[in-house]
Amino acid sequence: MEGDVLIIGGGPAGMETASRISDFKRNVILVEKERELGGHILKWDRLFPDGILASDITNELKASLGNTKVILGSYLASIEKRDDYHFVAQLSSGEIIRCSSVVLATGFKLFPAQKKQEYGYGLYDRVITNEDLETRFKKSEGLGKEAPKRVGFVHCVGSRDEKICNKQCSKLCCITAVKQAIELKQLYPDAEIFCFYMDLRMYGRGYEDLYLEAQSKYGIRFIRGRVSEISQDQSGLVIVKAEDTLASRPLKITLDWVILMAGIISERENDYLTQQLSLQLGEDGFINSLDPIIKTDQTNIPGVFVTGSATGPKTLPEVLSEARSTALTVNEYLNKIKNG
Amino acid sequence: MEGDVLIIGGGPAGMETASRISDFKRNVILVEKERELGGHILKWDRLFPDGILASDITNELKASLGNTKVILGSYLASIEKRDDYHFVAQLSSGEIIRCSSVVLATGFKLFPAQKKQEYGYGLYDRVITNEDLETRFKKSEGLGKEAPKRVGFVHCVGSRDEKICNKQCSKLCCITAVKQAIELKQLYPDAEIFCFYMDLRMYGRGYEDLYLEAQSKYGIRFIRGRVSEISQDQSGLVIVKAEDTLASRPLKITLDWVILMAGIISERENDYLTQQLSLQLGEDGFINSLDPIIKTDQTNIPGVFVTGSATGPKTLPEVLSEARSTALTVNEYLNKIKNG
Repeated sequence: MEGDVLIIGGGPAGMETASRISDFKRNVILVEKERELGGHILKWDRLFPDGILASDITNELKASLGNTKVILGSYLASIEKRDDYHFVAQLSSGEIIRCSSVVLATGFKLFPAQKKQEYGYGLYDRVITNEDLETRFKKSEGLGKEAPKRVGFVHCVGSRDEKICNKQCSKLCCITAVKQAIELKQLYPDAEIFCFYMDLRMYGRGYEDLYLEAQSKYGIRFIRGRVSEISQDQSGLVIVKAEDTLASRPLKITLDWVILMAGIISERENDYLTQQLSLQLGEDGFINSLDPIIKTDQTNIPGVFVTGSATGPKTLPEVLSEARSTALTVNEYLNKIKNG
Repeated sequence: MEGDVLIIGGGPAGMETASRISDFKRNVILVEKERELGGHILKWDRLFPDGILASDITNELKASLGNTKVILGSYLASIEKRDDYHFVAQLSSGEIIRCSSVVLATGFKLFPAQKKQEYGYGLYDRVITNEDLETRFKKSEGLGKEAPKRVGFVHCVGSRDEKICNKQCSKLCCITAVKQAIELKQLYPDAEIFCFYMDLRMYGRGYEDLYLEAQSKYGIRFIRGRVSEISQDQSGLVIVKAEDTLASRPLKITLDWVILMAGIISERENDYLTQQLSLQLGEDGFINSLDPIIKTDQTNIPGVFVTGSATGPKTLPEVLSEARSTALTVNEYLNKIKNG
């Protein structure tokens, strides 16, 4: 198979890049390892800040793919830059793809919460993750028919934590926790809801409104302090130990459910690809842009581009904006190699 | 004068949008009210996170403007949408511009720190703003020849503050304060430096590294608490009163200098333009995008686009990415009206 552009990854970044490059009458090949396009937001119910359905976004992006050749359920077994303008990739199916440029839209993965052993994910039934909660919201299950009395959200699980070797902030968890806390409160108006945080990073437009509303309208309580341990009592309730750093005292609280805000880490599964392409990665495992301000969608290898969360955590509007930027950059590159 | 696109605002957003639309052989007119292109970063010395010179960015953006017709020292006296595909604008010079589309790259303004009266900006010589400090860095003045012993940074001046009617986070001040604190410490290694913050919002890639380095390598002290009052003693030193919310005690500290991190607010000066174009603004005074996730550079009026910080605070790489996205969106619009 031949194309002008091979895009690796069929999440929002890959889809939007593909559709916008297709608009230039380019041959675009989009490879997604799962059997469905959409990436992480497939598992998500509603999106911050306005609560729009994630499926509406996925459907809109899918509908714009134009003549993009989409290959699902397949991954790249290998990729090689043959000369300045030619790449050859082999799919897991054995099929060969020849192309003039490559876009890595390989995204991120969620921190596997069981690695933070002291939080008991996988051991205790009522300790779940942000992603688990979204799946429950999607199925209209919430936290079950029996209304919970007390629910806690633990921020920064797998983020800002040198013990698990990730110093970085995941950028999306604070606002997601506030969104999910409000959604739970709407489902269970009598529940008490607590958020355990280190810094509340409500930096985006309208985020602060949501945070203030969470407190004033929904009575959600924000407790500044890192959770040290989660355990389970004999009745199946969950016990959270933390240091309340504002009250300067240790805190022990019994809850019906705990939601762990699993952070965003780099998709190390693709390291063989970045190695084969001689791309530079940061200490955090995300791909380095050619420069951090202007050439954000270019890499150290001409003809290889990067877009979306493959360079670090980003919000969805940032990802989509960057995908359009990448489409423009790739199109200019293809014009240049044709004329040069 | 006639053009395909009229871009209002010659900061990074306007320049990058102009250069990328010019690449499509469109006639672009870029109007900037100041006598020089560059916007706020003209006053800035070095940029986070890597300390690149702001002037390098401005020069690179200027060099890419191609055939853009640049009009400096002029602003729009009025603008009107005549019919679906035609806008007529009048410049302050009296000149008339006819165009098919308009991009608002009107940016933001810094909160005027004197409005936060209890901080004494304008009254006390040694109370200056983030912008003042950058100007001093640009002139290699620092804080003067006499090395300061103690310097304090006050975060969130004009942000997250209902008293001055801005509930929103300004998104750029935390990381800027950490950058500036490190730069001061490099100039004056013996100075004690304090940052007074509410939440440290180090959400971007590498920001957390800078924050950790500020503490471990440079010994900068971060004190969680809102500053209630700043005054001056008889010797000209500055007295800061705050509540240390982690130690749960009031705090009074005498400093040589205080840097106020003035926040980002909407450029209300352009309200007559947004009114004439019937654009929707948010409660925060920034322009509303057509939707907050996908159509971020479109507005409620076909043919009128918005890019960069005109929709709210953004980092420079976000602004430039969005500018390229806007160039693509505007070009598609121009193709559509030509064919439709």
